[in-house]
Amino acid sequence: METEEITIDQLESERFIAGQVEEISSAVGNGSAINALSGGVDSSVVTMIAHRSLGDRLRTYFIDTGLMREGEPEYIVSVFQDMGVHVELIDAKKTFFDALRGLTDPEEKRQAITQSFYKDVFGGLVRQTGAKHLLQGTNYTDIEETVAGIKRQHNILAQLGIDPEQRYGYKVIEPLLQLRKSAIRAIGKTLGLPEELYGRPPFPGPALAARVIGEATPERIEIVRAATTILEQELSRSGAFQYLAILHDDRVTGMRDGKRDYGLQIEIRCWESIDAKVASPTRLPYETLEHLADQITLKVPGVVSVTYNVTKKPPSTIEAV
Amino acid sequence: METEEITIDQLESERFIAGQVEEISSAVGNGSAINALSGGVDSSVVTMIAHRSLGDRLRTYFIDTGLMREGEPEYIVSVFQDMGVHVELIDAKKTFFDALRGLTDPEEKRQAITQSFYKDVFGGLVRQTGAKHLLQGTNYTDIEETVAGIKRQHNILAQLGIDPEQRYGYKVIEPLLQLRKSAIRAIGKTLGLPEELYGRPPFPGPALAARVIGEATPERIEIVRAATTILEQELSRSGAFQYLAILHDDRVTGMRDGKRDYGLQIEIRCWESIDAKVASPTRLPYETLEHLADQITLKVPGVVSVTYNVTKKPPSTIEAV
Repeated sequence: METEEITIDQLESERFIAGQVEEISSAVGNGSAINALSGGVDSSVVTMIAHRSLGDRLRTYFIDTGLMREGEPEYIVSVFQDMGVHVELIDAKKTFFDALRGLTDPEEKRQAITQSFYKDVFGGLVRQTGAKHLLQGTNYTDIEETVAGIKRQHNILAQLGIDPEQRYGYKVIEPLLQLRKSAIRAIGKTLGLPEELYGRPPFPGPALAARVIGEATPERIEIVRAATTILEQELSRSGAFQYLAILHDDRVTGMRDGKRDYGLQIEIRCWESIDAKVASPTRLPYETLEHLADQITLKVPGVVSVTYNVTKKPPSTIEAV
Repeated sequence: METEEITIDQLESERFIAGQVEEISSAVGNGSAINALSGGVDSSVVTMIAHRSLGDRLRTYFIDTGLMREGEPEYIVSVFQDMGVHVELIDAKKTFFDALRGLTDPEEKRQAITQSFYKDVFGGLVRQTGAKHLLQGTNYTDIEETVAGIKRQHNILAQLGIDPEQRYGYKVIEPLLQLRKSAIRAIGKTLGLPEELYGRPPFPGPALAARVIGEATPERIEIVRAATTILEQELSRSGAFQYLAILHDDRVTGMRDGKRDYGLQIEIRCWESIDAKVASPTRLPYETLEHLADQITLKVPGVVSVTYNVTKKPPSTIEAV
C-alpha cells in the first residue's frame, strides 16, 4: 500500500479532474446521481467534479442535522449558488436530535447519526429522486484509520464490509479514494473553490456531536457551537491544521460574583499536522489562549473553565469523541 | 475586616510564636491537647508552636487517609522526628475508602471525608487520649472563602455554626486564624521547619480525593497519585504558587499501537498567586508541558490525554472539585 503523502501540481490536478469527470460519466451513464455536501473540502471537491460531469443529473443536498456550526448551512449553500451549483437545503434537525436522545457512548452516537443520515434522511431522498448513484468524498486517510480500527468513518460503508446497494438501495462512487488531504485541497483550488472552502480545517462527520462528550442535546450543541464560533474567529489566521472546542461532561468548580458556581469546561485543541496521521499541539501564544478563555467564559453560558490540549497524536487522537 | 496581605518579618514572627505559645499554655492549662498533622504548612506550623508550648502534653497524629501523595505519610513523620517531635501514624485507609464508595458529588465526597476524619478517626483518638483541646491550622483565607460560599473548609466547624464541643466532644484552638499564607510561611521558617515544608504549595483538605472528578476509588486515587508525582517532580523548581494534576471522569478517544484506545484524561493546573484569592495560569514553556504530557501518558496506565488549564480565577477556582 502507498503510504506517502501524494503531492500534486496544477497539471496533475487538471488531469485528475478530467479523469474523474470521465469516470463518473461512464459509471452513471444515462442515470442520475445524488450526493450530500457537508461543506468540508472532500465533499465540496466531489460536488464540483460531479457537477462538471453530470450537470443537472446531479442532485446535491445539504442536510442540516442541527449539528453544524453557526450559520454554516446557509453559508455553504450560498457559496455553491455563486458557483452555479444548486444545493438543496434539508432541515433534518428533529430526526437527528430524536436519534441522539439519551446516548452518551461515542460509538452509539456515531451510529445514531449514521443511521439518521443514510437510512432515514438521505435514503429517503435517494428513493424520492430515483438516483442509483451516490457520490462520496471518502479519502485515503479515512480508509487507513478505519482499517487500523482508530475510527469508524460514517461515510465508507463499503470499506466496512456493508453492501450499500443491498442495505440502502444505492451504489457508491468515491472519486477521492486514493488522495490525501493536501492533494484534495490542491484540486479544490484548481476547481475554483474559494479558499475558505478548499483551505478549511477538517470537520468530523458527526459534526458538533463529536465535540460534545456525553449526550448531544440541542442545548449542549448550542454551547459547543458558541465556543466554536469564538475559537474559529480567533484561530482562523493561525495557520494551524485543525482547531476545535470540546464540551466536557464533567463539571468543575468555578466562581461567579464571588459565589461558588459548579460549571462547564471547554477543552481547546489546536493541531500541527500534514495529514492527521500524526499531530502536535500548536504552541499558541499564551496571550491567545488566555484571551480565548476570557471570551469563552464570558460569552458562553455556564462555562467556568477552559483547558488546552498538550498531548501529541498518538497517544491522543485529533478529536476527543 | 482586614483584607490586605499581612507581611511579617523575623522579629514579628518570633513575637507571634511567643504570644501563641503563651496563649496555648493558658488555654490548655494542666490538660492535654491533640492535633492532626497533614504536612501542609498550616498544620506543620501549628504542630511546632503547640509542641513548643505543651511538649509531651501534645499528641500529634498523621492520619493516613489513603488519599495522600506518594510516600507522604512516612516522609512527614520522619521530618518531624528529626526535629524532635513525635508524630503517630494512623492507617485509616479502609475507613475513608469505605466512606467514599459510590460518591461522585464533590460536596458529598467532602462530607464523607470530614465525617470520617473528625467523627470516625480523629474523634476516636480524642476519646482515647482524653484530650479536650484540638489545635487546628485554619487561616484567614479559609474563613473568607467559607463566608463567601466558595468553599466549605473541612477544618473550621466553628465558622460553619457547628459547635464542635457538643458535636465531637472537643474544643478548637486556631492559632493562625488571623494570618494569610505568606505570613504563615515566614513563621514556619522562623520555627526551623525545612524549606520543603514551609515553602510547600497548598494541598487541599480532601487531598487527592479533590483531584479526582467523580468517584474516588483506590484505583483512581492511585492514577492521580502517579500523575501528581510526575507533576511535582517537574514543577517543584517552577516557583509557581500551586500546581496540580486532576483525573477527569470523562473518557476521550486515544491511540495505542495504532489501535483505538478509549482512555483517561489528566488536567494540569499551575497557578501564579499571592494568597489564592485571585490567580492566573503560569505561562509554562511548551517544552515543559509537552514533556509532562509525554511522561504522564507513558507512565500512568490508561491515560491518553493531558490538558493544561488556561483560565484565570475567577471564574475558575484553584482546584476543580
